[in-house]
Formats: sequence, C-alpha cells, structure tokens
Amino acid sequence: MGGSEFRFINSLMKFQNLSPRVVKGIGDDAAVLALDARRYQLFTTDMCVEGVHFIKDAPARAVGWKAMAVNVSDIAAMGGLPTVAVVSIGIPKGLALSYVKNLYAGTHACAKAFNVSIVGGDTVRADKLVINVALLGEVEKKYLVTRDGVKAGDRIFVTGPLGKSLCSGRHLDFTPCVKQARFLVEHFKPSAMMDISDGLAGDLRHILAASGVGAVLDEEKIPRAAGATLTQALSDGEDFELLFTLSSGKARKLLEYSRRRNSLRFVEVGKVTAAPGKFLMKDVQGRLRPVAQKGFTHF
Amino acid sequence: MGGSEFRFINSLMKFQNLSPRVVKGIGDDAAVLALDARRYQLFTTDMCVEGVHFIKDAPARAVGWKAMAVNVSDIAAMGGLPTVAVVSIGIPKGLALSYVKNLYAGTHACAKAFNVSIVGGDTVRADKLVINVALLGEVEKKYLVTRDGVKAGDRIFVTGPLGKSLCSGRHLDFTPCVKQARFLVEHFKPSAMMDISDGLAGDLRHILAASGVGAVLDEEKIPRAAGATLTQALSDGEDFELLFTLSSGKARKLLEYSRRRNSLRFVEVGKVTAAPGKFLMKDVQGRLRPVAQKGFTHF
Repeated sequence: MGGSEFRFINSLMKFQNLSPRVVKGIGDDAAVLALDARRYQLFTTDMCVEGVHFIKDAPARAVGWKAMAVNVSDIAAMGGLPTVAVVSIGIPKGLALSYVKNLYAGTHACAKAFNVSIVGGDTVRADKLVINVALLGEVEKKYLVTRDGVKAGDRIFVTGPLGKSLCSGRHLDFTPCVKQARFLVEHFKPSAMMDISDGLAGDLRHILAASGVGAVLDEEKIPRAAGATLTQALSDGEDFELLFTLSSGKARKLLEYSRRRNSLRFVEVGKVTAAPGKFLMKDVQGRLRPVAQKGFTHF
Repeated sequence: MGGSEFRFINSLMKFQNLSPRVVKGIGDDAAVLALDARRYQLFTTDMCVEGVHFIKDAPARAVGWKAMAVNVSDIAAMGGLPTVAVVSIGIPKGLALSYVKNLYAGTHACAKAFNVSIVGGDTVRADKLVINVALLGEVEKKYLVTRDGVKAGDRIFVTGPLGKSLCSGRHLDFTPCVKQARFLVEHFKPSAMMDISDGLAGDLRHILAASGVGAVLDEEKIPRAAGATLTQALSDGEDFELLFTLSSGKARKLLEYSRRRNSLRFVEVGKVTAAPGKFLMKDVQGRLRPVAQKGFTHF
C-alpha cells in the first residue's frame, strides 16, 4: 500500500469510543489518561518487524534495545517518565536460542537504563522476527507537552544530529532523550514536542499543521549526522531526537543556559510563522524556498 | 523450538527490575499494578500471528475481534474490567484494504462491547499479518483473583464447553467471560482463576503447581463442545472459558444459585486434593488414572 492507503488506515484507528479516563487519544506520541490529581498516565506502543525496522543480520541485543527505546522515546516526547512495559515477541522456527537470549538482554538493558519494569508479555511463533512493546509512563500534569501548542514566533529546536540513522546503524542503539525532555519541561517548558521518527521535514509538518502555523528553517543551522546531506537530515527518519518549539523568550534563555553548561545539546533550527501551510527553507544566502521533503514512511 | 526452549524463553522474561508500583509481574493472566487506595490496575498483551493464531483465509472481522477478545479474557480472569487499549498491526503488501477495514471493525466491535477505549497504535509493514493488542484494566482490590490461591478441598469449575475450538472456528468469535468473572468476584469470590487458553489439563496443571496441590477431575462432568472427545476437551486449547476454584461451601451455594437462575453457566468438574503433583481422572466406573494431557502450546 502507498501513502494514501496508510493515511486511510490511520483514519480507521480513529473510530474510538472514548471513556472519561481518556484525556487525549490517538494522534500524539503517546495517549494521555487520567491518573490522579497531580499526574497523567501515558500509554504507547510500537511494533518492530524484521526486514522493515531491522535487517535479519542486525545484532540481537541492539534489536531488543531498539524495541524498548522507541517506546521510551515516545514517553519522553510527552514530557514524561516511562514506568511499566509488556513485551510480545514472535519468533521464527530455527532462530538460534542465543539470538533470542541476546534480544531479551537488549530489551532488559534499555528497560533498566530508564527504570522500566517489564511485567508481562507473550511469546509466539512467527515467520519473521517481530517485537511489540507497549509502555506506560507518568507525567506531572504541569509538565505534559503535546504536539499541538505551537505558536507563531516560537523558535524550533532539535536535540541532536539528523540523517543517516538507518544506514549508520544509529537507529539501533540510540539513547532516548528522556534527560533532555525532563530538563526542558522542568526549566524551559516547550509549547510543543515530539520525537523525530519520520524525519525533521515530515514531523515538523505534522506539528505545524496541528497548530495551523508555518515555519522557516535555517539551512546552515540544521545539525547533520556525519556524512549526511541536507536532504538526508530532513527526511531519512528514525533519528529519535526531540523536535520542540519554545517561545522566543524561553529560547534565548535556553541558548544562554546551554552556552554556560554544555551537558545537553539543544540546537535552534528555525522559527514558526503565522502563515499556515508555508514551510520554507532559508539558504546561506538568505534566499527562501519551499521545503519539499515529506518525511520517511515505513509503508 | 520445542517445549523446553519455550520454557527457557519464558524464564528469560523473568529478569525484571520491579518498581514498587508492581504488585504482581509475569506469571498470571495480567500484571497487577498499584492504582489508588481502592483499585489495582491490570496490564496484559497478546500477539496474534497469521498461520499460527488464525489462517490466511479467516474472516477479517473475526480475526480483529479475536485479537482484542483474548486480552479482554485475560483481564476478566483477574476479576477485573478492561479499560484502555493500544493496537499494533503489521500488514503484508498487497493485502486488500477491505480486509484491513474489516479487521479494524472487528477489533473495534469487541472494544465497544466491553467498554474499551482504543487510544493508540502502530501500523507497520510485515510479511504476514500480525496484530498485537496491549490492554489495561481495573479491579477493586477486594475482587482481585490470581492463579495461586487454590486450597485442598476446593471445587474446580469451568464456565462452558471445551475442545475443538480451533477446528470449529469458535476461537475466532468467542465472547470473553467478563460477565461470569464479575458475577463470581462479587458473589462467590474464587480462590483462584484463569482463562483456559492452553486446554483444561495444561492450565489446571499450572494453577495446581502454583499452590502445591493436586486434583481429581470427574470424567463425566467435563463439558465437551459438540463432537469433542475427552482428549480434545482436555488439551485442544483456545477455549477461553474460565477455570476457577471455590471453597466447598461457596461451590454448593453457587450450584444452588445456578439451578434457580439459569443465566450464566458454571460447571463443577472436579476437586482439589492435598497431594502435590497428583493430577487424576475419575472415570464413570469410579476408577482413577493419571491425567496424561499436557495442554496445547503455540510453539
């Protein structure tokens, strides 16, 4: 199926019968559920399939790490901390037991690194290796960040280098940006945030559309991974860096803070404009052109 | 992989780093998490794979229903009510869009029937159709039933006919026993409960072992699905009826109640004994023999 069918399938997901417990359903990095007076619960899931999200020869431990890490990244993108997970694995006949053991070791290592308890799962037979993680998290109500709060005049930031994640193998052993997200919500709360899974161009397009605004990116400021072209940085996908927006006042303060203390990386890459649908790139000569890249799709 | 490898994999799942929020982790139908003063949260997941849990030609709507229903059944087996789910689907290239649409319709129909809100998911490419549902539920603390409370002298019950579920297609459109479970926890709280997914023999063996007791089943009392042999009733699997144990006093009262009001079915099939590891069948002549059946495994 192509892109249009993919959108159709996504639209099918939207037949939800929502209970009062559901604060925010499909359409963000994680769903937001009522928990108690002070906190929301977060809920997300991701499926990783052999031949699609990793190749057959990928190191088992890295594959297991990734299956958990992509979910942790979703919780981070809402400003939250991950808590509890269930893990389903479909295992092909004849797969070496040592592979399965290393796969679990990777999933457990990532869980441990981010204080996630794995409390259940399902192990079944499948033709190709498939891992599904479903992850709960928690976020203080005051720290929740969604995708739809972008305002004209906001500055656009990313947390690290983009592009070539798939071909470099970075997509398999990335560290979810939990530290960065928690630092931000506690000190410089973003107006909107998401993790970059389909490429900066595609993902930024989503959050601009959700808020009815436009943007101008600054070509020379976009951090590129080693060897990545601008196009790759914009559309390769699976970067799992955070993309967020900040009011100009907070942006200035964050950049000042970053200059003084260098522990976390925050890179300003552009500015939000009041023009809905206008998504532009400013080149080194200051000329503007439309951003063509649509972003990566797994379909 | 064979049964021993399957057990090995299950043992790998047990490297958990448990947080104080986790009341009960891997090893029951669902994990039990702290929620508030009055209630626990439940969390479960099941993966359904084409060619393993359903055939390629299975009706899409029924496959979608089953993917949700097996999870609802897990929540029911803990005495709880399902609340919120996330659904991941891996879709093969070239699968008709109408199939995908009907699949979602089935999942949504089951969600609606049991007041489940679908709040998120993941749609990815896969070689064979695979659906993973992760489901949350809630249970009042006083109503929680686990697998490990069986006592010598308890009576053993099931909620309906067993066997031939896979070949009759019953496994695809079964109704999870939420009503029965809630009736039980509110009026005749079982000492232990689980849903029968691997066959009565295998699943009963699990809960006997968990409590260090034995049992005698009554051959003529075991309810068989139309055309099912005793062996099929004991070991076919995917029945999704409830298996539970009750003190003899409660058992008598439940049977009296059932005779007066016929709306829900509860069938006594045997008795728990104090002899660990002794799992016997009493035939129509009153002779005892060991139960050989080990239960169905998806591996």
